[in-house]
Amino acid sequence: MGSRMGDGELLMTPGPVMLSKRVMRALCRQVCSHLSSEFAEALSEARDLLKEVFRTGQDVVIAPGSSSLGLEMAISNSVGPGDEVLVVSSGYYADRIAEMVVRHGGLPVMVEAPARRGVEVGRLKEALESHPDARALCVVHVESSTGVANPVGDIGRLARREGLLYIVDAVSSLGGMEVRADDWGIDYCVAGPQKALGAPPGLALLSVSGRALDMARSRRERPSTFYMDITGWVRATREPLKRYVTHSVLLVFALREALRIAVEEGLEKRFRRHHALAEAVRRGVRELGLEVFPEEGHEADTLTAVRVPEPLSSTRIADVMLAESGVRVARGWGPHADRILRIGHMGNIGPEHVLKALSALELALSRLGHEARGAVEEASSFLSSQDPDVLRPPDEIPI
Amino acid sequence: MGSRMGDGELLMTPGPVMLSKRVMRALCRQVCSHLSSEFAEALSEARDLLKEVFRTGQDVVIAPGSSSLGLEMAISNSVGPGDEVLVVSSGYYADRIAEMVVRHGGLPVMVEAPARRGVEVGRLKEALESHPDARALCVVHVESSTGVANPVGDIGRLARREGLLYIVDAVSSLGGMEVRADDWGIDYCVAGPQKALGAPPGLALLSVSGRALDMARSRRERPSTFYMDITGWVRATREPLKRYVTHSVLLVFALREALRIAVEEGLEKRFRRHHALAEAVRRGVRELGLEVFPEEGHEADTLTAVRVPEPLSSTRIADVMLAESGVRVARGWGPHADRILRIGHMGNIGPEHVLKALSALELALSRLGHEARGAVEEASSFLSSQDPDVLRPPDEIPI
Repeated sequence: MGSRMGDGELLMTPGPVMLSKRVMRALCRQVCSHLSSEFAEALSEARDLLKEVFRTGQDVVIAPGSSSLGLEMAISNSVGPGDEVLVVSSGYYADRIAEMVVRHGGLPVMVEAPARRGVEVGRLKEALESHPDARALCVVHVESSTGVANPVGDIGRLARREGLLYIVDAVSSLGGMEVRADDWGIDYCVAGPQKALGAPPGLALLSVSGRALDMARSRRERPSTFYMDITGWVRATREPLKRYVTHSVLLVFALREALRIAVEEGLEKRFRRHHALAEAVRRGVRELGLEVFPEEGHEADTLTAVRVPEPLSSTRIADVMLAESGVRVARGWGPHADRILRIGHMGNIGPEHVLKALSALELALSRLGHEARGAVEEASSFLSSQDPDVLRPPDEIPI
Repeated sequence: MGSRMGDGELLMTPGPVMLSKRVMRALCRQVCSHLSSEFAEALSEARDLLKEVFRTGQDVVIAPGSSSLGLEMAISNSVGPGDEVLVVSSGYYADRIAEMVVRHGGLPVMVEAPARRGVEVGRLKEALESHPDARALCVVHVESSTGVANPVGDIGRLARREGLLYIVDAVSSLGGMEVRADDWGIDYCVAGPQKALGAPPGLALLSVSGRALDMARSRRERPSTFYMDITGWVRATREPLKRYVTHSVLLVFALREALRIAVEEGLEKRFRRHHALAEAVRRGVRELGLEVFPEEGHEADTLTAVRVPEPLSSTRIADVMLAESGVRVARGWGPHADRILRIGHMGNIGPEHVLKALSALELALSRLGHEARGAVEEASSFLSSQDPDVLRPPDEIPI
């Protein structure tokens, strides 16, 4: 097997992440009816906890499917034929958003973002001047292809001022970095359970503003889909006992437990833990003479993309880390896949997990002829300067 | 908790069904990367086993989502603006198909089916004469609102002769009743893991014919969706190591185990087990002086809808069965919900499960003043006349 709890590899990719003990216990149970009061209670509680995590007093949706489904729910309920949509061109997932806009008849206007810094609000303002009729603005909070975080709060102020529908892909940030759906004026905030929330993949999570819902309702005459109809999903999530589709009951029990853990830990504290662990990884990486891909101040706290200089290759490094140390990280994407190594550090992990990953990286580099030391010491020393209460993971992930 | 294995209610609704031990063991594991070879092997094996179960040499798709997503994948990739689509009007799920056809711009032509017998092929021929340009034909194999099975094989011959795209909702039949995607000329056969296959809900399962795929490819110029693009999902299911969306990894491990169980048991034997258990339920129900809703020869073997005469109410019966015996069954749907009681008998169950359900029904009826006895004896006596090897469940579900 090799994948039972505590008996396998340490998964440190940018998602999905490993389950902690409580989440796994919540998952490992008998199926119950999706129309039972037991399930309705679980879905209601998960919904209410998810509102806390999204920082919204408006609606949220929990639907069987992947995060891409959630994104397309947002797009398909707000973009129609001929609508111009500004899309921050930050990487792979931004390109997927643009593809979805096209499929729904919209016209994506790509706004270039410096690869290592994310978009500048000024660039968005310029784009808006050339496209004053733009209907919506889409941005990926954390691009998991680059580890760059976009300034979602600042962009939100612009979107609100300009009356744009604001769609944020927070898949790789929610639960590990601050996201404030209401304060930032986000109309659709899309996330997944399998990243910083620490639950298994298989559900689409969204926050939906009242404005977005009104807009979706008012365009019901246009052809839409059943499965992506946001008004149906909002109703189904508000009233779990009403018949809609057969929900993914076991994943909802697991999600509820993961959300309980996040809220019990406290979101602010959880973000501080993620920040400290991320900072430890970045310091360790730099100590090895490698460069963190995003410029300082633009790094995500949920994953780190590392530049891999020739003649090293991220594929080789990742292979050796897995073979020698049982630590799985990810290479980059696209034509420069071999020049980027990506380490995920999110969910319910603690110092021991990131230190093991750094130790594996150090060993792999030396196996590949890049002699460098000190990543673990540097990271340890940084972590020992942090508040131990903040660093303590809220649940156990045996390694 | 009350829902751990063997420590809760006996779930005998028309789905989702209870997990057997092996399926639960397969589910209860640590998350792995959706891009790992371990997951790719699981998805590949599940895909190949699913082909055996669908009886197809063509493509199948396994996607995160519910069965309704699978149905809409079929509709959205084959129906466009102005297309006439014949829909066998068999109940709730047929109405949902019609709704999907409308949402994608098509014109559903409802073909009435006698409520207790399912559609007659002759009626479909007549409908085709009035609608010679119809593009597709949709039928629900087993309507879980009525327990009626439609003659999917016979309809398939007609569809092929007339060159219609043939879409079958086999959600409540696949794994418990014969379904032959290739022999019956089914272009899209849609199923779910949570019914007769005995796996947890949360995945859409489809078989896709080469013809359907060609047709979907040739109409790529029309707006479609990303998440329901059948060509993308076929590619992703053929090549699990290629990046697509984050799959619902744990549900795929559970599905693989459920499919292994079904194929190890042998499909023919599995159908015979379902048939014998269904027959036992029907005989028991009749012994209580109640009527099985479908006419003889038109009953599904996966669930039984029972007519509930006044002054009894199916809601009350179901409530008492749950409260007194810990057995959960379902009421009917819509305006006559109280006149129909639905008992699911599918998945990896055996005689003990259906006998317990009948015993609970008997007790509930007597509590409600309808004195009738003999259901359990009648069913037991029938079952003891059957081949014990056929009746033996392929895995254990403790009750």
